[in-house]
Amino acid sequence: MAQRVRVQNFGVSRDGIGAGAEQTLERPFGHVDPMQLMAWAFTTASFPGMENPEGSRGIEDYLTRDFAHGIGAEIMGRHKFGPQRGAWTDDGWRGWWGEEPPFHTPVVVLTHHEREPLQVGETTFHFVSGTPEEALALARELAGGLDVRIGGGVSTVRQFLDADLIDDMHVAIAPLEYGEGLKLWDSPEDLAGRFTIEKVTAPSGVEHCFLWR
Amino acid sequence: MAQRVRVQNFGVSRDGIGAGAEQTLERPFGHVDPMQLMAWAFTTASFPGMENPEGSRGIEDYLTRDFAHGIGAEIMGRHKFGPQRGAWTDDGWRGWWGEEPPFHTPVVVLTHHEREPLQVGETTFHFVSGTPEEALALARELAGGLDVRIGGGVSTVRQFLDADLIDDMHVAIAPLEYGEGLKLWDSPEDLAGRFTIEKVTAPSGVEHCFLWR
Repeated sequence: MAQRVRVQNFGVSRDGIGAGAEQTLERPFGHVDPMQLMAWAFTTASFPGMENPEGSRGIEDYLTRDFAHGIGAEIMGRHKFGPQRGAWTDDGWRGWWGEEPPFHTPVVVLTHHEREPLQVGETTFHFVSGTPEEALALARELAGGLDVRIGGGVSTVRQFLDADLIDDMHVAIAPLEYGEGLKLWDSPEDLAGRFTIEKVTAPSGVEHCFLWR
Repeated sequence: MAQRVRVQNFGVSRDGIGAGAEQTLERPFGHVDPMQLMAWAFTTASFPGMENPEGSRGIEDYLTRDFAHGIGAEIMGRHKFGPQRGAWTDDGWRGWWGEEPPFHTPVVVLTHHEREPLQVGETTFHFVSGTPEEALALARELAGGLDVRIGGGVSTVRQFLDADLIDDMHVAIAPLEYGEGLKLWDSPEDLAGRFTIEKVTAPSGVEHCFLWR
């Protein structure tokens, strides 16, 4: 089937917040606690990088285990890669994920400061500036016919939504409210008309929202 | 992760009927209409052998697209393979699926009448008699470390449940009642205690039931 551009397992609160603005090395999601926002995913058997044979194998495991299937490249914002700002320094940073990142594909990192690619385990990070369209053209090529994941964070997903480049989204709406932070949307209905929208509430209390076109 | 034995996308009515007893060449499911019982699956983008780019990409597409992932072999009953009974005749039957069956793995067909393996497309059918335990031992070996699917029909799934050989089940309970036919269960609660049970109702009206241990 034709190559698609997908957002997978993206967690937001009921008020649409996916992360805090004040990212630090210690708090990659700022005041938002990812262990709380994404609790539903961490308890499944198949969350990438946290596989657990004792984990749940219900509907939410289908969502986490689908992560790598059919994906040939990811695009992420610079803040998903690391907490640095401005020009790169020789600080030895290799991403948040240790020596075996869960991507196992080329990753395009959006940045205003280009640099040489960095290979970590089976993942190669390519640092590129340019428009979302340009980054996507590169990612499509790197993906070798497979789909492209828009991996976040919030601003990156917003950028690709605003440029109307996304085909599929799975957003997990946790039963939490943060009030402030980086906002994906007021509600999924913001995107009505552009996407078919389907919602299913899991026993975890999380509302899984699927959007496709 | 350890090799598991799984039932996937198995359709039954609210009263637990998965097929009629009176199978014929024209009606593989007897009085049960699979297009009705499994309607939820046929409208997704990814149902194996019926892929459709215009299909739905919500929660039920995750269920159909998971079909092949991590599976190294299937076990099926003889009636899933064909409508014949008794000794095999030289009738040229190669299964219901044409020249490219959707399995793409070795398939173990349970029969009282052994015969030589049959290759159709990327699928090889092995015809074996013996206990469920013996068939599973062969399928585990053929699966090369991947999971084994118990593909049905109803009697085959029951046999493997009765022998306590199944680790994971996804059963799709359609909003239909048939009254009579081949029965998987009275309700999923028949298996409470042996499995963790989770249920999620999709917008299609189908109740997806996940059981794992």
